[in-house]
Parts: sequence; C-alpha cells; structure tokens
Amino acid sequence: MRNALGRVIPESAAGYGPITPFAGAFAAKPDGVRRNGPVKAVGSGRSKVLASLEAAFKAAGLRDGMTLSFHHHLRNGDFVLNMVLATAAHLGLRDLTIAMSSLHPVHAPLVDRMRDGTVSGLHTNYIVGPVAGAVSAGILAKPVVMRTHGGRARAIETGQLTIDVAFIAAPAADDYGNLSGVDGPSACGPLGYAAADAEFADVVVAVTDCLRPYPLFPISIPQTRVDYVVVVDSIGDPRGIASGTTRMTNNPTDHKIAHATARVIRASGLLKDGFSFQTGAGGASLASAHYVRRFMREGGIVGSFALGGITNYMVEMLHEGLFKALIDVQCFDLEAVRSLACDKNHIEVGASFYANPFTRGCVVNRLDAVVLGATEIDLDFNVNVVTGSNGVIMGGSGGHADAAAGAALTIVAAKLMRKRLPIVVERVLTATTPGETVDVLVTERGLAVNPRRPDLAERLRAARLPVKRIEELHEAALDLTDPPDPVPLGDKTVALVEYRDGTMIDVVRQASI
Amino acid sequence: MRNALGRVIPESAAGYGPITPFAGAFAAKPDGVRRNGPVKAVGSGRSKVLASLEAAFKAAGLRDGMTLSFHHHLRNGDFVLNMVLATAAHLGLRDLTIAMSSLHPVHAPLVDRMRDGTVSGLHTNYIVGPVAGAVSAGILAKPVVMRTHGGRARAIETGQLTIDVAFIAAPAADDYGNLSGVDGPSACGPLGYAAADAEFADVVVAVTDCLRPYPLFPISIPQTRVDYVVVVDSIGDPRGIASGTTRMTNNPTDHKIAHATARVIRASGLLKDGFSFQTGAGGASLASAHYVRRFMREGGIVGSFALGGITNYMVEMLHEGLFKALIDVQCFDLEAVRSLACDKNHIEVGASFYANPFTRGCVVNRLDAVVLGATEIDLDFNVNVVTGSNGVIMGGSGGHADAAAGAALTIVAAKLMRKRLPIVVERVLTATTPGETVDVLVTERGLAVNPRRPDLAERLRAARLPVKRIEELHEAALDLTDPPDPVPLGDKTVALVEYRDGTMIDVVRQASI
Repeated sequence: MRNALGRVIPESAAGYGPITPFAGAFAAKPDGVRRNGPVKAVGSGRSKVLASLEAAFKAAGLRDGMTLSFHHHLRNGDFVLNMVLATAAHLGLRDLTIAMSSLHPVHAPLVDRMRDGTVSGLHTNYIVGPVAGAVSAGILAKPVVMRTHGGRARAIETGQLTIDVAFIAAPAADDYGNLSGVDGPSACGPLGYAAADAEFADVVVAVTDCLRPYPLFPISIPQTRVDYVVVVDSIGDPRGIASGTTRMTNNPTDHKIAHATARVIRASGLLKDGFSFQTGAGGASLASAHYVRRFMREGGIVGSFALGGITNYMVEMLHEGLFKALIDVQCFDLEAVRSLACDKNHIEVGASFYANPFTRGCVVNRLDAVVLGATEIDLDFNVNVVTGSNGVIMGGSGGHADAAAGAALTIVAAKLMRKRLPIVVERVLTATTPGETVDVLVTERGLAVNPRRPDLAERLRAARLPVKRIEELHEAALDLTDPPDPVPLGDKTVALVEYRDGTMIDVVRQASI
Repeated sequence: MRNALGRVIPESAAGYGPITPFAGAFAAKPDGVRRNGPVKAVGSGRSKVLASLEAAFKAAGLRDGMTLSFHHHLRNGDFVLNMVLATAAHLGLRDLTIAMSSLHPVHAPLVDRMRDGTVSGLHTNYIVGPVAGAVSAGILAKPVVMRTHGGRARAIETGQLTIDVAFIAAPAADDYGNLSGVDGPSACGPLGYAAADAEFADVVVAVTDCLRPYPLFPISIPQTRVDYVVVVDSIGDPRGIASGTTRMTNNPTDHKIAHATARVIRASGLLKDGFSFQTGAGGASLASAHYVRRFMREGGIVGSFALGGITNYMVEMLHEGLFKALIDVQCFDLEAVRSLACDKNHIEVGASFYANPFTRGCVVNRLDAVVLGATEIDLDFNVNVVTGSNGVIMGGSGGHADAAAGAALTIVAAKLMRKRLPIVVERVLTATTPGETVDVLVTERGLAVNPRRPDLAERLRAARLPVKRIEELHEAALDLTDPPDPVPLGDKTVALVEYRDGTMIDVVRQASI
C-alpha cells in the first residue's frame, strides 16, 4: 500500500504485525491507556546488589525470545550492551530482541550475535557503524524497527514496544537502585532515554561502575523502579561520549550556511525575548548557534530555553545569560555533563518530556526554532536522515522528526552537495521527516521556503535573503554534481521507519554491499 | 470477621466492596500491574490556561458521581478544596467523592457539601477539625476510607482508588502545566502527595496564583501530566502551612521523654555514620531530634539522611553537616520551604518514593530510626492515632504506619497520660499501626520494649535505661488517672482504616457527639 507521502509500504511485517500507513504529521490520534508496569514490593533491608550480570539474568528470569532494552548516553563509549550480549551468548540464549535507543561503531559485536542467532530482532532510533551495514545487507530475517526519540518513548508507554528486561548503564548508583548520570568516572549527563524503560519494563537492571553510599542524588532514575544493581569494572569510556560531530566547524561553507540560517531565524520574527532554540551537534547546524548568539547579544535578547542534545556551546550561551535554562535529554560532550551536575538552570528530562507526541505536551512543542541536518531533502521538503546515497543505513531520525514537528520554525541547513552527490533531490530515497514539518532549506547557494509558508517567504524576502524555489536549488545541485547512479536495492525490507506517532512513513530495502 | 489483630471488621462496605482483613504487617503481596493512565496528545501552540474553575469543570467533563482528588501541602492554609467545592455546588453537581491526602479545620465547608449531597464519599489519610466531627457523627451514608500516605499512593497506582479529576494546588505554574511547589506567594515545598494523582488521574487541573514564564523550574509535576491550568487570586495562606505542632516544645515532660528517646537510639547501636532518621513535627517526637543532634555532635557522627515531613530543625541539622541529605515529601514550615528551593541536598520526592509498600522499595525501608507519637498504645504495642478517647476521629495515620513498618527501630514517644486519661491502654480503641512494627514505647515513667525485640531490650538495659514491661507502664498510668469511661459507640461504621497494603486493620464506629 502507499502512505500519504506516496511511499510503498507493506501491510504487515514479520515480528511487527499490521502496519498503519503514515497519514500526515498530525493525523494520528491516540486512544487507550498507558502500558501497565508491574506492581512489586521490596521490603526493608534488602540490598539490590547482585554479584554479576549472570546473576542478574537469573534473578530477572531472562530467557529465549525476550526483549532487552538499553540506552545510548555513553554513545560510542558504551560497554554495557556488549557485556550483556556476551553474557547472553555465554548462557546460550537465543532469539533475543534488542531495543537500544541508538547504536554506534563500538557495538560491532552485535553483528556476531545477530549472525549466530542470539539476537533476532532490533529496535533503534539511529545506527552508525558495522551494525548499520549488517542490517542493510539483510542479516536479520525480521526488519529492524527504527523510531524517533519521542516515538520510542511513545511506543514503550503505550505498550507497542514491551520490554522484558531493561539494562541501564548507570554512571553512579546506590545499593537500593537510585541512579545518577552526573557522577562517577563514566558520567554522561542525563539518563533521559532510559526513563521510559525504567518506568515500564517488567524488570530493571542497573549496571554501574560507581557504587555510592545511600541515598545517591541527584536522582535520574529512582529506586522505586529498579530491581537489581550490578557492579562492573567499567561501564564505558567517557571519551566516547563526545563524538566528532559536536565540535564547532571551521569549514567556510558551513559558516556561510550557518550565517544565512541565523538571518532566517532573525527575519522570521521569532528572535526576541523568550526565544527557544534547538540545534544539531555538528556542521552548519551547530555553527548556526554561533550567529544566533551574535544576534542575541547585539539585540540584547534573553531567550527562554535551549533544548537538545546539549553541547558546550549551549552551556556557554546559558552562562552568558542568553538563555534562562537548558533542557537536556542527552549530553554531547563532557563540558555539558559538568554543567548538568552543578547548574540548577540545566535541567534533565526524559525522552517522553522531550518529544513523545502522545503526552499532554512535550517540550519540542514549545520550540521557536530548530536547525537540523539532512542526508537528502526532496522537492516536497521531505528529509532523509536514515540512508546514504548507496541505500545503506547510516543514521536515523533520533529527535529529527520530533523537533521538526514541534518547532514553530524548522530549518534544514545543508550543503547543496556531499561527496559530489546532490543533497536536494527529486525524491528522497527514504522519507524520515515529512515535508509538511519543514519550513526552510538553507544552502550555500540560497534558500527555499516550503510553499505552505508564504508568510515566512515574504518575511525572508523583505530581509533581502536569497529566497529561491526548491526546484532551482535542485537544478543548481544537478549542474554541480555527477549524475547519480541509480541505487540497486533488493526486495527484502530490512528496516521499518516509523514516524513519531507509530504510523509507517517508509521502509528501507536491502542494499547491495 | 476478625483480622489478625482480633479486630471485628465487616466483610464488605458500601462504596468500597469486599474487604480483605489485615493479616500481618508484611503478609500481603502485590500482584497485577499498575493502573493505566490515559494516553493523550497535546500539540504545539496550545495553551493550557483556562479562564476559571468552571471552565475547567467543563473541559474536564466533570459530572455527578466522579472522584476528585486534592493534596494537602498548604495544610490549614489551603483554599483550593473549598473553591472547587463551591464551584461544584454552584453547578449543582451531586454525589462526588473527595480524595484528599489530609483534611484540616480550614476545610469546614466540606461539612455543608456532605450535608447537601454534593459530596457523598471521602478518602483521606488524616482529618482534624469540623470534618472529623461530622464524619464521626455519621454524616455520610458510606464510610470514609482512611489510608496511610504510602497506602494512598499504592491505592492510586494499583487502581484501587481511581481519580477522575485531580486538582493540584500549584504555588507556581507555567502556561503549559509545569508545576513547582517552591515558587510564588503560596510556596509550600514539595508537591509529593500529588505526584501519584498527576500520574494516574484521567484529567489533571492545576490551580495556581502565580503564572510564570515557560519553562518553569524546578519542576515538581511536569507538563506531560497536566491538562489544564486555572489562575485564581490566591490558592492559600502560607501562614497555614506551619501548624502549631511544628514548634519545639518547652514542656519539661516532653524533654524528659525526648532525652530518653535519644538515649534509646544511641543504645540501639544505630547512631553511627550513615544514620538515617525521621521524627514527627511536634512534642516529644520533635524534641527527640534536639538530643539526637547533641549526641551526633558529641560523637562526630555524620548521618546519611533525614526523612519526612521536614521542619526547620532538620534544615539546621543539614546545614550543620549532621546529615548529607533531607528527603522531603512535605514541608512543615516556611524555613523548610526556603531550604528546598535553594539547597541541592534537600530533595523533593513523591508519596510513592516516600512510603508506598508496593514499589521496588520506598525510602522508609531505609530508615534506621523513627520517633512517632500516639493517642493510645496497647499491651500488644498496637497504636491508635485515628480516634480520641471519646471515639471521635481526630487525626489519622499519615506516614505513621509506613515509617513504623520501614524503620529498623520504631519508637513511640508519648506521655503516660493526656488530659487525665491513660495513653497506655489494655486495647486501643482503633488500631492504626500494628504492634509488630513498634519496637519501643518511651514515657516519662520509663520505657517498654516489644517482646519481639529481646536483643534491643538487652542493649537498653546495658545502657542503664529504665526498661519495664508495658504492663507496668499501663498500671502506672491507671494509678495516675481517673478510670476511663466506656466509650459509647453506635453500630454504624463511619470509617474504614486501611493498613498501608490495602488490607483492613480496623474500622471506626459512629460516636455520640
């Protein structure tokens, strides 16, 4: 069948069941109730500390076919998924489903576990590295389910994604299960992507390398939701938290795009006292914060909050008084971690508060402007951040589609071409973020405004910004680049791309690699 | 039927259904799942502010027969219950059930609403003032359900107590429903008793007199759980937060008991580094903190946490470095409110974290020592804090039974007689806290140790404390007091007294007043 974007999607999928086609960014309405978590009773005097992961597997009753969840705040420094997989393989478990908010190159051992049948199912919001290649090549019989950060929280809260055992990488814990992300040698900041897991999983196992005296605080995840605590030598390498993408770019093209992006925000009329802002952690997206900062200083503007994915750059803007608060679901560097630990204006929130569309209001709904990247953007402003030009998975939505849907002004800031391939295309290979939620594309060759926003186009023209039709940018890209080869794809569906509301926005087919 | 304490209780009750008899403090085991809260979606740009309580009633679909919940952090200064009741009466609603965590003299208008049929059901953890008298006199056809603070959170989470509309008195709010208890003219500290209401009620209405710019923080209750915000002139009188019971006593008998209580704690072996402590807010109970403080100073002891109901006295002990943290579900005075607002070592928690027996571990489980009061205590160490000597309701468990069950050492500190009536009785009129969870009774005439704790009796004797049999204290009380008149009680059950696990520990019968 075809969904509202014209994408061909199956009626159902193995391990998933019936598929609801995407019908528009704000079309789906929730019904029903949140998932039931189990009622348990833990009495006085009982310590929750177990001697090993193996002991936790036993205590949790972990068995073949179960769904195990993980969070990714340790990013490419995470050791916990690999430790748990090694234990599962050692115990001979089969047919597990891994639900991890994001997968990084460090998680390469998962490929072996998918190959040997220890793992047969995968749910995630973002994949880079060997796991992405293996999934694209069709290593699993069942398609991987890819979600947004808000969509994952929604799926857990509504019971679409049920978790048997949640493993929480806890930079610090006490013996009764209070967990903190800002303490210990592997401090990573918030534990926001694990919040729903802890709330709704049947069994919750904290894995830590830093056991503190009771009571540990500040509390990211409370004792009332944690069953067991396992102490290991090390849960991760903090150097892996800061990935390369979070450094401010020196590239002049990035800066040209970033400057134009900041001018778009200023011209939109949103850049005034109370301004709220989210930006990506790399390239032109992060560089736009540099120019927004300059404009805020010049205008004497005091914003309300910056949201994200928080980098040191946002911490500096907080310290400078340009924002009153940082609302933080994930730290992108260690300076942000230190800020969260000591600054009461730097607030930790869970993924549901951040971006779950099926709550009484998540914080992306209150964003004035968000600046996002893209692998491809098409003439309908649909964005692809899942697959590369060769059809291989190399990312995922993360919070992309969430922030785009919530913000009053959504800007995609991207170079017109990457590696001699055009970014602006007639039709994206994989639709991740629907065009109706994207307002402006900014490139180094000019910018295009979504025809749904004539008011905005008028403002940008009045500010003498180089507004073009997106078709013009597409043609400019074609003039500059080699004609792209058609991407040879197999018939097999290797990934389902869920929109944040749980409808299917696209699928990814097997790539020839 | 008779329960494990030999109390005669009905098999079922109107508006309640079948009754499970109390079988022992740790006998009941939970099964099943937490209650489902509704899944909702609130999109961008929608303000939650409504013009009036009447508008909120309409938006919430409030109708006859519904259950409305309230919290009591504004204590005897609360205006919100009365405002909502006035609106309900004005709209001609009937047959409402009020579930408020505690009722105070200021809530006298509830009596009129019970009399005129606006309200026909009541759930609460504590009642003093005109409502208590009216309930005891049998104003309602259905018995009132009295719970503990932890038991109320349990009842809400498990779905035993379902809430249609929760009204949350919010000292500060933003227009998207983030609520804080430490800001605004009616700042009251934590909103811990409203946490479960906000999580599980079908509709959540915040009532505030202080609307702040978005985002409001620190966040006591998040936007993801709040449907509507109503701004009124005033939600309460902060002077009502500090009730008379929270002042340090000058009474020499109280101090004699308090000193002996502190000696019991010291002799128990628990008063060492890491010590954790909870005490009541009045009389000998609060005064015991004075002597515990002295002993901690003298011994150079650094405790882990103090829990409660937090008073200024505990704040001083925190500042002095005698505790590392205060864990706070309710502030008893404005100094404590100020401390919570600015000290990161003063931690707000919800009622479930505080005392819900059916979680993966509440914090009362980690208490070393708690000092509690009593209206009566009997030869089996069962305690009554619900009814006075005339059989009229004049209190309730609050956290009494919760802390007693959780703490390693539970001390009841009380004068041997009150108003010429003995505190130590053969059999308490109403059983609130089971004797198996009470370790020591301390009076001005000596102390008695529960026969279940021969180890403790041995330690106290070794410390030359005046250990007696509780029967001796009972006889001493009889010698000093007038023989108590038999209490004339009717047949009608006016209140069900639930133990924290949801079993029935006793009932209250109609009093002749």
